[in-house]
Amino acid sequence: MAKQNRRILLASRPEGAPKPENFKIETGAIPEPAEGEVLLETLYLSLDPYMRGRMSDAKSYAAPVEVGAVMEGGTVSRVARTRHPGFAEGDIVLSHSGWQSHALSDGRGLRKLDPAGQAPVSTALGVLGMPGFTAYAGLLSIGRPKAGETVVVAAASGAVGSVVGQIAKIKGARAVGIAGGAEKCAFVRDELGFDAVVDHRAPDFQEKLAEACPKGIDVYFENVGGAVWDAVFPLLNSFARVPVCGLIAQYNDVPGSRSGPDRLPATMRQVLSRSLTLRGFIQTEFIDQREEFLRDVGGWIGDGRLKYREDVVDGLENAPEAFIGLLEGRNFGKLVVRVAPEA
Amino acid sequence: MAKQNRRILLASRPEGAPKPENFKIETGAIPEPAEGEVLLETLYLSLDPYMRGRMSDAKSYAAPVEVGAVMEGGTVSRVARTRHPGFAEGDIVLSHSGWQSHALSDGRGLRKLDPAGQAPVSTALGVLGMPGFTAYAGLLSIGRPKAGETVVVAAASGAVGSVVGQIAKIKGARAVGIAGGAEKCAFVRDELGFDAVVDHRAPDFQEKLAEACPKGIDVYFENVGGAVWDAVFPLLNSFARVPVCGLIAQYNDVPGSRSGPDRLPATMRQVLSRSLTLRGFIQTEFIDQREEFLRDVGGWIGDGRLKYREDVVDGLENAPEAFIGLLEGRNFGKLVVRVAPEA
Repeated sequence: MAKQNRRILLASRPEGAPKPENFKIETGAIPEPAEGEVLLETLYLSLDPYMRGRMSDAKSYAAPVEVGAVMEGGTVSRVARTRHPGFAEGDIVLSHSGWQSHALSDGRGLRKLDPAGQAPVSTALGVLGMPGFTAYAGLLSIGRPKAGETVVVAAASGAVGSVVGQIAKIKGARAVGIAGGAEKCAFVRDELGFDAVVDHRAPDFQEKLAEACPKGIDVYFENVGGAVWDAVFPLLNSFARVPVCGLIAQYNDVPGSRSGPDRLPATMRQVLSRSLTLRGFIQTEFIDQREEFLRDVGGWIGDGRLKYREDVVDGLENAPEAFIGLLEGRNFGKLVVRVAPEA
Repeated sequence: MAKQNRRILLASRPEGAPKPENFKIETGAIPEPAEGEVLLETLYLSLDPYMRGRMSDAKSYAAPVEVGAVMEGGTVSRVARTRHPGFAEGDIVLSHSGWQSHALSDGRGLRKLDPAGQAPVSTALGVLGMPGFTAYAGLLSIGRPKAGETVVVAAASGAVGSVVGQIAKIKGARAVGIAGGAEKCAFVRDELGFDAVVDHRAPDFQEKLAEACPKGIDVYFENVGGAVWDAVFPLLNSFARVPVCGLIAQYNDVPGSRSGPDRLPATMRQVLSRSLTLRGFIQTEFIDQREEFLRDVGGWIGDGRLKYREDVVDGLENAPEAFIGLLEGRNFGKLVVRVAPEA
């Protein structure tokens, strides 16, 4: 066990893309648990696009991280010391300890994980965690794909997109992925088994996407925004559903920076004339489906019907650089930081 | 009965707002029904905003009216001659005869109306017809207002808006209308019984709307678009629902004419961060609710809980001018043209 607590703070709010200087690493004494508390040692820290929103003070569904405070984030942690009757030393838990090596907890919100389970504990941050649940709930409750329909998802090799496409397949739909670069595209097609994949970096991306969707698009799971949306939008069929769970391509935009033309009137016209549904969501509103999700997705992983890929970065000090890369699509699979070895 | 058939044709496709020269009136012989047909004499012609879309050849859910063809439209018609076993001379029917004084029909799609019913037959084009059903289905199936929520609708004195607000009230929601001018606003508040009404022509419209919605907006029934949307959008609460049934303020736009800034990225960001639902629709998709609608709304009219207002223009030849006025908000209530006297 490390002798010092290491924490990564928000040093300043980014304008546009976050830079290393927006973060600050700090070391200090490891805190002592009071009666009723546990000391948690972080094993894995999840890095997710939503964190970009927390770095800004624009109005959102969640409060921003204060400047000078520890960056927020989900973790898989080990109970290092316990003064809480519900937790034993060595227990592995899902926590929300943030970007730091140690944290205190009174036990609220912790969920015990089974290190002998069928999937590594780190998957509680990915395919069996928030990103996987986002994919599951958004696709099934809002997208509602029917057999034979076409489901399109971007960032298809990523934590959410990979699960969206594979569940679409399991439900009998045609899954078309969008990814950046030959390696990710090959993975999406050959490993994840999508019906088709299109490289958004290709100069003829829009044509290729149209070719991959000869019957149009019935569900577009929106997790990127930007140029991909522009290519997808003309292909949406009547009554298409668009669960909106993320807009990573826009997260670094400076507010008010978009010049014209104004695409909103034409978009609304198509929403009307094609009876489209656009529906923003965060997974927490579907929380009562969580057990069903764990059973379904856990089962599909066990059957080999649903695959996942993790992109593991070693060392808390590398979290800022890895997070900056995530916003640029440099990760390949669910991005986690290994903060301390499991055993 | 007139001795000639009069028809109003689409003379040319408008650019921007329709002008009188986009229409042409033509007279000709009254056609003879063949075996199995009826000759219909138009009593009332409905004028509705959707007709602007039919004048353009932009891709839509419905085919455009061809240049040189009769303008499309719903009618209340009387069977003038019959060679169809299902219809007697004098029967009053709901038809889709278009902008003309006479039409043949093989009976398909006709619906018999009861002239002794509790509401005048012209209401089959309004509160008990397509506009009323649009309000009913869109509000209840997509908007789903809960008691105590705030429902906002524009064109609140019009055929659709007036019904939206009154049903919202019946369901226990707070109804806030938007209308143009003091006379319409007074009608919406005092006659229709909305909780509040705001004049969109007021210089401080946006502030007034915010004052009228102190708890934000939970359902915005979108039938106008344009500047009203800009005022409504910042007030939408988390999980707000926006049934989109019309965009009358945009119908006269020339495609591609909107300069920046581009409001789409910010709109999508709010769709995401406030978990908004935008849902375009046309009433035909809810057609299985039609009987329920007639029973509910017919009952509410009978109880005096739901009021309506018709704006009746005399003479088919005045239809183009009345329609041009409709797109500018010059009508006051459901706009119908009396083409021939009822009796």
